[in-house]
Amino acid sequence: MMRTEIGSLGEFGLIRHLTKNNETKNVSTIVSVGDDAAVIDHAGMQTVISTDLLLEDIHFDLGYTPLKHLGYKSIVVNLSDIYAMNATPTQVTVSIGISNRFSVEALEDFYEGVYAACEKYGVDLVGGDTSSSKKGFIISITAIGEVPIDKYVTRSGAKKGDLICVSGDLGGAFLGLTLMEREKKIFEETGAQPDLENQAYIVGRLLKPEARKDVVEYFATEGVMPTSMMDISDGLSSELLHLCRESNCGCLLYEDKIPLAEETRQFAYKLEIDPTACALSGGEDYELVFTLDQSLYEKVKNNPDISIIGYITDHTEGKHIITRGGNKYELTAQGWNHLGGA
Amino acid sequence: MMRTEIGSLGEFGLIRHLTKNNETKNVSTIVSVGDDAAVIDHAGMQTVISTDLLLEDIHFDLGYTPLKHLGYKSIVVNLSDIYAMNATPTQVTVSIGISNRFSVEALEDFYEGVYAACEKYGVDLVGGDTSSSKKGFIISITAIGEVPIDKYVTRSGAKKGDLICVSGDLGGAFLGLTLMEREKKIFEETGAQPDLENQAYIVGRLLKPEARKDVVEYFATEGVMPTSMMDISDGLSSELLHLCRESNCGCLLYEDKIPLAEETRQFAYKLEIDPTACALSGGEDYELVFTLDQSLYEKVKNNPDISIIGYITDHTEGKHIITRGGNKYELTAQGWNHLGGA
Repeated sequence: MMRTEIGSLGEFGLIRHLTKNNETKNVSTIVSVGDDAAVIDHAGMQTVISTDLLLEDIHFDLGYTPLKHLGYKSIVVNLSDIYAMNATPTQVTVSIGISNRFSVEALEDFYEGVYAACEKYGVDLVGGDTSSSKKGFIISITAIGEVPIDKYVTRSGAKKGDLICVSGDLGGAFLGLTLMEREKKIFEETGAQPDLENQAYIVGRLLKPEARKDVVEYFATEGVMPTSMMDISDGLSSELLHLCRESNCGCLLYEDKIPLAEETRQFAYKLEIDPTACALSGGEDYELVFTLDQSLYEKVKNNPDISIIGYITDHTEGKHIITRGGNKYELTAQGWNHLGGA
Repeated sequence: MMRTEIGSLGEFGLIRHLTKNNETKNVSTIVSVGDDAAVIDHAGMQTVISTDLLLEDIHFDLGYTPLKHLGYKSIVVNLSDIYAMNATPTQVTVSIGISNRFSVEALEDFYEGVYAACEKYGVDLVGGDTSSSKKGFIISITAIGEVPIDKYVTRSGAKKGDLICVSGDLGGAFLGLTLMEREKKIFEETGAQPDLENQAYIVGRLLKPEARKDVVEYFATEGVMPTSMMDISDGLSSELLHLCRESNCGCLLYEDKIPLAEETRQFAYKLEIDPTACALSGGEDYELVFTLDQSLYEKVKNNPDISIIGYITDHTEGKHIITRGGNKYELTAQGWNHLGGA
């Protein structure tokens, strides 16, 4: 396999090399890569901005994360924040810090993933920064989007009686991570090749998540405006507690309504973990949790991508979950680490 | 001195702590810190975005950079990119990665500098990300600004006969760095306390640079629209070669027109370095280099903050400098390292 040293291109050469086929797709992109700044014209729309810093061995492990997947996921998790505002992403900037342990070819893999995500979601790469680092791979992404005036949705608008909904299914990414960490440990101890047990679904949920463009488009088509919304990066419990605090309200969830993929459920039982706990406390599913006025029930009840999992209560009633067995427990943010995973 | 461990606050607690006094100043800031993304309304204006990644021991040395100054400078260098588009900065996002060697108090110092710069330049802190890092201090800043429709200025509009202008004076930051590196080396070898020789000017140029808000405001007041512009972060030569390449033109500079502060000139001679070389190849001055149609000569000739240093030629004529002695040399991008500095 060919290895081109990054130093052989120089910083500006490297940027030119990595962006040489970069074409813009949005009319809002006026000036793209290559100037002091990018210029964007969201004529008559509001601009939405979100940014993330991703660090090697904190947010990702290159031991089991292919660089192309990492590039793809880095973009997707930022776009997810834009969709979580009920907005449409239009541009991204990508900054990376890299040590000389990475070759130009390795960066090409990373950018292949970046461009694949940009293509799929229709966003333009409009800028960034490339720097050498002493150690480790550092990624900083800023996503920019647009939303019609005052159609953005924050975390603070939920009100008593609203339906609590989530998109897709939950807990899969956490089980994918648990599996990858287990196999990494076995590999380090015994040298045995990973056995992913045909768990393509949960591994895919971890390594190649998608943002819920389709759900936000569905809202626009159906004229549905959530009262509050956020994306699920840290687990349903933690996000819902945030949303309730920002909206100054309580909530009541039903365990049997929380959507789980069959693959997630089966693998959780195999590992003797409660699949509901994976959904509540596992992170990185990048689904949307949102609240809707009850009058919108008919518009979402038959959508297979949306599950109604409970409703918003007065803040004096607290935040609770009713289990399959009919018991009522207080909802707590147990976080990603609680289940004995990474 | 008090030391509060970052872990004692948790990620969300830390963000709340660092942003608890954050107030927005711009009507364009609709949603600020605390949601999935910020919402900005540049009603009828175009949005300008620039981003930078700053890494410890690559871009800054905490051995002689106070954290408050680092916070200030991190913001200013990004705002400089927005001004270099002839735009007005309105918002910033600040993401940091920090190891547990930093305390909450250390981060408060950093943010004190961030807020001081935001206050001075009238921009709002609207988002960011806080993460632990394995090692080192990682800073990623995105600056957002606005410009009236199509009044942005790129690097590609210079044309034959245009005046080449720079703001302020050049070379000081490079000499400040040279001095700090020298004193650091002496300290490491002998333990002797730094002797900054009352070089407040050049040390200030390095540690507390300012962005040229005033120059862009002057353009607006006087109805001056540069044909091209960029900020000087890597040295005048390198930036001018960029500008000429992007504009497909040549240039002719006059050495005796390049603005140098008296402090810069004297300290360069003391170190037996050519001060012109500091201006051409030293970086981090964050002044603006821009080109103007000759008809605007009267509007800038008496502005003490603007120096006319040459003019744009046809690209077939190449890029040259005429020295004080009357010799003509080709301009080359020697970069920051050429002079034997850091």
